[in-house]
Amino acid sequence: MNTTEKFTEELKAINAKIKEYISSQSFMSKFKPEDIRDGVYLYLLRSAKSLRPGILSFSCGAVGGNPDSVLPAAAAVEVFHNWTLVHDDIIDNDSLRRGGDTVHVHFQKLAQGRGYSKADAEEYGRNLAILVGDIQHSFAISLFTKLYSEHEFEPALIIKLIDMMELEMNIELVEGETIDVQLSKKPILDITEDDIISMSAGKTGALYSFSAKAGAMLGLETIDENNPQIKSLSKFAYNCGVAFQLQDDILGITGSEEKIGKPYGSDIKEGKRTTIVWFAYNNATAAQKKTILGNLGKRSLERSEIDKMVRLLTDLGGIKHTFELAKKHIDLALLELNNIADSIYKDLLKSWADFMIKRSF
Amino acid sequence: MNTTEKFTEELKAINAKIKEYISSQSFMSKFKPEDIRDGVYLYLLRSAKSLRPGILSFSCGAVGGNPDSVLPAAAAVEVFHNWTLVHDDIIDNDSLRRGGDTVHVHFQKLAQGRGYSKADAEEYGRNLAILVGDIQHSFAISLFTKLYSEHEFEPALIIKLIDMMELEMNIELVEGETIDVQLSKKPILDITEDDIISMSAGKTGALYSFSAKAGAMLGLETIDENNPQIKSLSKFAYNCGVAFQLQDDILGITGSEEKIGKPYGSDIKEGKRTTIVWFAYNNATAAQKKTILGNLGKRSLERSEIDKMVRLLTDLGGIKHTFELAKKHIDLALLELNNIADSIYKDLLKSWADFMIKRSF
Repeated sequence: MNTTEKFTEELKAINAKIKEYISSQSFMSKFKPEDIRDGVYLYLLRSAKSLRPGILSFSCGAVGGNPDSVLPAAAAVEVFHNWTLVHDDIIDNDSLRRGGDTVHVHFQKLAQGRGYSKADAEEYGRNLAILVGDIQHSFAISLFTKLYSEHEFEPALIIKLIDMMELEMNIELVEGETIDVQLSKKPILDITEDDIISMSAGKTGALYSFSAKAGAMLGLETIDENNPQIKSLSKFAYNCGVAFQLQDDILGITGSEEKIGKPYGSDIKEGKRTTIVWFAYNNATAAQKKTILGNLGKRSLERSEIDKMVRLLTDLGGIKHTFELAKKHIDLALLELNNIADSIYKDLLKSWADFMIKRSF
Repeated sequence: MNTTEKFTEELKAINAKIKEYISSQSFMSKFKPEDIRDGVYLYLLRSAKSLRPGILSFSCGAVGGNPDSVLPAAAAVEVFHNWTLVHDDIIDNDSLRRGGDTVHVHFQKLAQGRGYSKADAEEYGRNLAILVGDIQHSFAISLFTKLYSEHEFEPALIIKLIDMMELEMNIELVEGETIDVQLSKKPILDITEDDIISMSAGKTGALYSFSAKAGAMLGLETIDENNPQIKSLSKFAYNCGVAFQLQDDILGITGSEEKIGKPYGSDIKEGKRTTIVWFAYNNATAAQKKTILGNLGKRSLERSEIDKMVRLLTDLGGIKHTFELAKKHIDLALLELNNIADSIYKDLLKSWADFMIKRSF
């Protein structure tokens, strides 16, 4: 088995363990009423990449810890990621996630089946999705406490991790999401490339970085955030997060609906501010600028118009530039691994980094 | 100073301490961007009753603990309560809270001022309010961790409290809110009085009960939930929570907009399922039943029609019955105090219980 295959196998194994762990009766039976329980598990039981549990486990292993002992933390970052997805899907009006309905659409359809009017069903869908996300947030925190009750980690270390997650990481994550919401209404002229990259850093880098840090701190059983291995793994994951988001923007333009799970051209229709659009716009002629501004954020775009925009953004170098930016962040990330001793886990971390920009989904 | 005055003074003092504590630079400077920070503090800095911090502090004192040492926990339950308000206000489409705009309305107005269209401003308001609530949830958890870093409570006890809050209490709380959302669409014929009371128990009793439990566990420095004093204080607060919610339903019908901070008749217009309506309906003639069903949940009701409904619900005994129910829960609560030694804190707990049904706001 080569490293890439090993990497794929490991992620699959982690995903399976997490699904089994969080679906145990002791957790599942707690969620009430039925609609909330179904909502909590809707994305969690679908097929997922498990990149956050992966980086947490590999980071734990890379500093000499036992990845099996941090399963509750690996599950916690996955569940934490889930509530942010559920709330973001409401915010972004997305209807597809992991190959199925988003939570709010799921409940909207359910309510329609129960005889609600269209408007009432939409409201019910949104309301239940808000509450489901809130409960998943709680579930994630609770999973962290299991590191103590099931694996006997030092309670002071767990408290430190919970505080880092809630007061530092989540503020950064929500900041990224807020800037995303705000940028989409700002004229592209008033945005800098740094604005877009720091949004990406918040939206994905923050939780990646926290996951690496948590894995390493648990692996080393230390509360010292300034430990050089911990700092390196945290920066490694942070830069990979930026690269992931940049690649996501590329797939949002070039990927098929089947692969990426959202309708063709939706990033263009939603007027998403990406480095692709930013770079293309800043290298466009006056006429091309007019075309970009006229089509970006236009919900009624037809397929032929989307095709034309994709070609324009590509021809103006937006895709190539964004891929180079992503590659640059991966190179920065890999440099950090010089501070980590060789091991099978270090190889897995390298594969994890490669995956950020080689993936097609 | 008599006990009632002392009670009012104490709550005011706790409220002031919490405001000062959570507004310190070390917290406030963390929240980003500006809109999120403003949202996080919007309700927190308005005048509030501080009933949850009150019961937490008094319970701590009543078992012999030092209420000053649990300030971060008192702040935590207030901030926790706040995120549930922010999300509930979106769910209930409420526009007033603590004498000012709700968070989503605040951001809606802000966006309109920034030139957003009405629909875009509404969406922005809702989106920011979802994110603000999410950050307040995190803030609450983080405040709990300060019991360790600032007051040296046993980390294992704090982990226990966080787990209780997140996995048990919040599930009950969200269950109450979910049932509320679901009941409002159910025919009144299909609802039992127990449905309504268990919804009230979830919406208010769960966090009251947790606050009392947390205060007592910190006061006794124990993780033993089965300690008789802890169990009694928890049941005491739970029953008071049910009574509070029942009294809230009465004020929702009879209270002035100025006092209760929501428009006259809004509970009737929203079709809220209360024991008032339930009892009145089940004691009504066929003609009266028709009137109740015709007006309940009708958004376009005029003042004279609301007046008529209020009179009808009163004449059919709905208000009286609900007050008796509330009183019954207070009596049940007070019985629990037999297990608590006499002290100034026990007197404050009694005043706290009295307040549930004597308040007019």
